[in-house]
Amino acid sequence: MIDFHILKQSSRSRARLGILKTSHGEVETPCLVPVATQAVVKTLTSEEAVETGSQMLIANTYHLHLYPGEAIVKRAGGIHEFMHWRRPLMTDSGGFQVFSLGFGKDLAVNKITHTKSKTQIEQGRQPKLLSITDDGVEFRSHRDGRKLFIGPKESIRIQTAIGADIAFAFDECPPPHASRAYMTQSVSRTHRWEIVSLKYHSHKQALYGIVQGGRYKELRMQSAQFIARLPFDGFSIGGEFGDNKSAMTRMLNVVMRELPDEKPRHLLGVGHLEDIESIIKSGIDTFDCTVPTHYARHGVAFTSHGRLDMYKQKFLTDKNPLDTTCACIVCQSYRRNYITHLLRAREITALKLLTFHNLHFFHSLISSLRNKIKEGKL
Amino acid sequence: MIDFHILKQSSRSRARLGILKTSHGEVETPCLVPVATQAVVKTLTSEEAVETGSQMLIANTYHLHLYPGEAIVKRAGGIHEFMHWRRPLMTDSGGFQVFSLGFGKDLAVNKITHTKSKTQIEQGRQPKLLSITDDGVEFRSHRDGRKLFIGPKESIRIQTAIGADIAFAFDECPPPHASRAYMTQSVSRTHRWEIVSLKYHSHKQALYGIVQGGRYKELRMQSAQFIARLPFDGFSIGGEFGDNKSAMTRMLNVVMRELPDEKPRHLLGVGHLEDIESIIKSGIDTFDCTVPTHYARHGVAFTSHGRLDMYKQKFLTDKNPLDTTCACIVCQSYRRNYITHLLRAREITALKLLTFHNLHFFHSLISSLRNKIKEGKL
Repeated sequence: MIDFHILKQSSRSRARLGILKTSHGEVETPCLVPVATQAVVKTLTSEEAVETGSQMLIANTYHLHLYPGEAIVKRAGGIHEFMHWRRPLMTDSGGFQVFSLGFGKDLAVNKITHTKSKTQIEQGRQPKLLSITDDGVEFRSHRDGRKLFIGPKESIRIQTAIGADIAFAFDECPPPHASRAYMTQSVSRTHRWEIVSLKYHSHKQALYGIVQGGRYKELRMQSAQFIARLPFDGFSIGGEFGDNKSAMTRMLNVVMRELPDEKPRHLLGVGHLEDIESIIKSGIDTFDCTVPTHYARHGVAFTSHGRLDMYKQKFLTDKNPLDTTCACIVCQSYRRNYITHLLRAREITALKLLTFHNLHFFHSLISSLRNKIKEGKL
Repeated sequence: MIDFHILKQSSRSRARLGILKTSHGEVETPCLVPVATQAVVKTLTSEEAVETGSQMLIANTYHLHLYPGEAIVKRAGGIHEFMHWRRPLMTDSGGFQVFSLGFGKDLAVNKITHTKSKTQIEQGRQPKLLSITDDGVEFRSHRDGRKLFIGPKESIRIQTAIGADIAFAFDECPPPHASRAYMTQSVSRTHRWEIVSLKYHSHKQALYGIVQGGRYKELRMQSAQFIARLPFDGFSIGGEFGDNKSAMTRMLNVVMRELPDEKPRHLLGVGHLEDIESIIKSGIDTFDCTVPTHYARHGVAFTSHGRLDMYKQKFLTDKNPLDTTCACIVCQSYRRNYITHLLRAREITALKLLTFHNLHFFHSLISSLRNKIKEGKL
């Protein structure tokens, strides 16, 4: 189980400094939770993930269920033993993958390109590749096409077998342009699923409830009020918030007011570099995001001088480290010329060096924001 | 420059224990030299290559010439600075790649499958994709098709710019089934090229001569006698030896008798696990081979219980380390179940873990053979 302790509440914003205690150690919050989809931070070992400054990881229930299957993870002694990660771990509920396979695929939208489609999703409409009922979601594996079913009961059963410190209630992550009627029905379905999740979850794990409601302020507020009254160990905010960054900030403020201050709050799948300060100021304690690792594998380095596209030929003669102000082991040892050479030569080592640096860069930035809260500056 | 000191000559075989001193540190011999084709041991950082026990690496002149070009490496301050490898380094001459692109491609043979084709290559025959003249080799880049020329002068010029501690004279690596007439002509062409290599090489680097002669004993002997009289800093043995392992051992013995004992000897591109003891017993001091790293990237772990195909499903429930007797950091932290999971999930981390373990395994084996020489047992 977990224990959350607030060390300091900012008087300038909703930001707070906290310690999240789990049986696998403590997490200083606010904190970015890197994504370990298949029980690995892509390109890194668990030891390297620690060295980047990662305190907690989030693995993917849907992916681990499909492969290797939660039975394999359980037989290995649980996910901590399996991946040799001796620190705190979360698993998502699998709800977001249902969204990606369903309307996400139909509309060619995902969290990164969510504003591209404006098609309104009406009440009663079903995505092409899966069917959503009151019990859960029936879909086909993207790996081998076999028919699968995940509902709240199944999600919790899978997450219990995986054995992370923190599990999430099963939710529907609705499409960004769901109509109000679709969203109203979706939110109440998610609420029912959350109650079922609470019923089936093992008390060895913490369970976080999820607030949904999309871009509709009243639905978000109702969802937060509903979830806040349930005996979850923490709360999280899922789904889309609307078309721009200020919409997210406004919506987070609406939701935060309804959630109990003493429990931890997680923001699911959001963490672009430019959003981090406002996420923290809204009172979020932990948030997971693929941005630092995903961009690394596409050759992008985050630096104090902005994003660098390391595929660019000009870097082949650049003897600077990725970031002259960065203390990470990559910046201590390697230069832009070499990293660009490795990228262009399709050497795997390049992706690892960039992943390591980017995670270190994000964690350092967040560490400095924690210091700002401590000093009363944020 | 280099300095070679023999610590002990075995009385049971030609094996010897030595120290090879370079301006970038010392190498305990006999020693495996892992391959860093594009200035990187594939999947590892330079720090990790050191941690596996690697003392010296060999980079590829042909590949670095094509990309990023030796000018980039030189501008970075030389290959040691470029790849942050502060230990000894070799570069091959590019001759083997000429072979691979030429007859190797025509006959679909390479060092691993060299016995598959029995087509005899007669004198005067040219490979399809390149043309070999007395001055060198004209060929097209496998990357962009541009016409290139490498002869001894060019090879030495490229190797000087790359700046390894040890360079190799430019040679023709003839096809395995070259006729005696072809081989006779090829060997004398290689000898002429070696004299030109000596003339152009920078005395900042050591230069090794190369013995050729294929499967013809007298040609090997003549080649060794010719090369032994030239003022090289060390000697190496290239090319093919015939169709079986004992042919290689016999041929190495023929060659070794002709080479001066006091200079270091390198075997080019040979190092299957089962060959290592007889290579060392023949008096070879250093040898390079892609076996540990290449097999790792194909999911094979070398262990004291033999080779394991880590793609096999059965390992998903196997809680043993790759090798229960191995002291490497991979075997200390990770289990077969997880490595197989990562491999089957196509996670890059798997290739890195296997590469690390395999190199450590090979280096440990060779370290124990060095101890055997010390103890008078080999």
